[in-house]
Amino acid sequence: MPFAPLQNDTFLRACLRQSTDHTPVWLMRQAGRYLPEYCATRARAGSFMGLATNVDYATEVTLQPLERYPLDAAILFSDILTVPDAMGLGLSFQQGEGPKFAKTVRTEADVDRLAVPDMDRLRYVFDAVTSIRRALDGRVPLIGFSGSPWTLACYMVEGGGSDDYRLVKGLMYSRPDLMHRILAINADAVAAYLNAQIDAGAQAVMVFDSWGGVLADGKFQEFSLAYTRRVLAQLKRTDANGAVVPRIVFTKGGGLWLTDMKDLDCEVLGLDWTVNLGRARALVGESKALQGNIDPNVLFAPPEAIEREVAGVLESFGPPHQGTGQGPTHIFNLGHGISQYTPPEHVKALVDAVHRHSRRLRAA
Amino acid sequence: MPFAPLQNDTFLRACLRQSTDHTPVWLMRQAGRYLPEYCATRARAGSFMGLATNVDYATEVTLQPLERYPLDAAILFSDILTVPDAMGLGLSFQQGEGPKFAKTVRTEADVDRLAVPDMDRLRYVFDAVTSIRRALDGRVPLIGFSGSPWTLACYMVEGGGSDDYRLVKGLMYSRPDLMHRILAINADAVAAYLNAQIDAGAQAVMVFDSWGGVLADGKFQEFSLAYTRRVLAQLKRTDANGAVVPRIVFTKGGGLWLTDMKDLDCEVLGLDWTVNLGRARALVGESKALQGNIDPNVLFAPPEAIEREVAGVLESFGPPHQGTGQGPTHIFNLGHGISQYTPPEHVKALVDAVHRHSRRLRAA
Repeated sequence: MPFAPLQNDTFLRACLRQSTDHTPVWLMRQAGRYLPEYCATRARAGSFMGLATNVDYATEVTLQPLERYPLDAAILFSDILTVPDAMGLGLSFQQGEGPKFAKTVRTEADVDRLAVPDMDRLRYVFDAVTSIRRALDGRVPLIGFSGSPWTLACYMVEGGGSDDYRLVKGLMYSRPDLMHRILAINADAVAAYLNAQIDAGAQAVMVFDSWGGVLADGKFQEFSLAYTRRVLAQLKRTDANGAVVPRIVFTKGGGLWLTDMKDLDCEVLGLDWTVNLGRARALVGESKALQGNIDPNVLFAPPEAIEREVAGVLESFGPPHQGTGQGPTHIFNLGHGISQYTPPEHVKALVDAVHRHSRRLRAA
Repeated sequence: MPFAPLQNDTFLRACLRQSTDHTPVWLMRQAGRYLPEYCATRARAGSFMGLATNVDYATEVTLQPLERYPLDAAILFSDILTVPDAMGLGLSFQQGEGPKFAKTVRTEADVDRLAVPDMDRLRYVFDAVTSIRRALDGRVPLIGFSGSPWTLACYMVEGGGSDDYRLVKGLMYSRPDLMHRILAINADAVAAYLNAQIDAGAQAVMVFDSWGGVLADGKFQEFSLAYTRRVLAQLKRTDANGAVVPRIVFTKGGGLWLTDMKDLDCEVLGLDWTVNLGRARALVGESKALQGNIDPNVLFAPPEAIEREVAGVLESFGPPHQGTGQGPTHIFNLGHGISQYTPPEHVKALVDAVHRHSRRLRAA
């Protein structure tokens, strides 16, 4: 049974640098703990992984923010670390804490045991993609995603989050050969994983290089960007129906390396709030759409302040492309995942302000 | 009684963009927990504040790293948060945790109560500066320091460290007027504090803008840089003997804003490891010495790897100024404070590598 035709293609058009009547907006982690309905579903699921591995729950929470806000895209509810979990490292989330792996990858013997996992172990993700795509019924496109090879490696070596990246960087500086082996396996696994999401129905895919920005200049290019490139080179360009599947790369804290990233074989670059969108547009040039980049903490201010900051971000990008052909386009997003403490009604103020103000800019 | 004449002026010369026969090196937090002798003194002092507020202990730990390594500068042992402590906020350090304030600044009433503190409340710092300067006996210059107005505000509003800056940014976006009032008071307090350190014997001063890099483009300029500027405008240029006192500004994560910082009224810009020193040199131009920027995690690698990375950082800066007059100079440092888990013998490998390799570069 084919999927329903798409009713709102604003996001996909902007990814492909085609004109739209408003700037599309979606929010990283838009299905999350700031929504009481999400917390209710999570409570029924028992745990984060219980939620992520259950197709019905994953479908339910993915659609929750779309019921509240006129967002222009949905993103698969999952985690960036499903791939190393499928490698046998044992992912879990303690209440109120970040991800933890039961096993870590720190020695040559650990690396010897590492391999691209059987994609059947990630079947629950692909099933969720198909289920969500059906449930969306063509309302908005569905984005699939994964962590980047480097970001996965950070968690695999550290065994969880870190505030200094001491173990993963210690390994990188001491045994660059081992780090390269880990990253090559991660890259091939991420590529297979994203291709399977595309086969299952994802209409765009995003690589989250959440920790690329902690690397030194030179090391970022060698240990993060090179492996993002290796992922991109293996990705399908179109889905089963021949529709182009845009690829988004987001390196948090990567603003200094835009000139290194502008030639990446992808359609969209994600940016955080430290980057000036106008300057990024000038640097990146005609090759990419830009996605981002408001500080999620803006959402703690009252609606009038949110509107002002939204206008500032839209205006910093400058006039978007209008008319036929391709030109500069902007996809509005946060520069990082939404905070669990965000008042839900402030999200409404943000999404409405993006739509209203971006229409006004096009009319000017 | 005048202070002893300086025997090693390499650091001060490099700050003033004068040639030196090697690249000077010192390390942020060089008197710290990675040294067993530091831990022994801290144990005797009972607490971090017990250590920092006792002139003899502060002198002892400041000199400890100089006994082990041929460092080219000493830095006052203290904390970046002494100023808000003197404002009455009650600073403490729980074992194994970061700084905590007993009182926070979050409301208009809190801001109404805030004022530049009587510098007598910081007498222990100035006494330590004089004591350390005497104990150094001219071996190397002594650097004084403070947190930047914005960085102090982060802790004052959050009440301690933060991983999302939700409260301080929430206040900034909601009530920019209150944030500007806090920052103006902080700036005037920091300026008075650094001037008193200069009077007491500090031969250079450094402003640590540790959290400037978490701000959005536009907000950094408005809420951090503008107040660093306000500090710099009030600082003494020379000490009681007419010697120039170089001023160093370090914004962690500020690499994207070097063009905004190149016109700051200071002698040295500190950089973290995400910045390419050669590119920074080209951007900043002829006005400033550069300080930085090796990743402190390099110190977890074996000595051969440390040497290789040190050479890479020195070479990324390019050929340093030689001969008379002024020209491009580099002060070697970490891009962040040294980790408490660092093996002390690896620090020796780093310092020796900087001296040896930088002499070799000058001879080439």
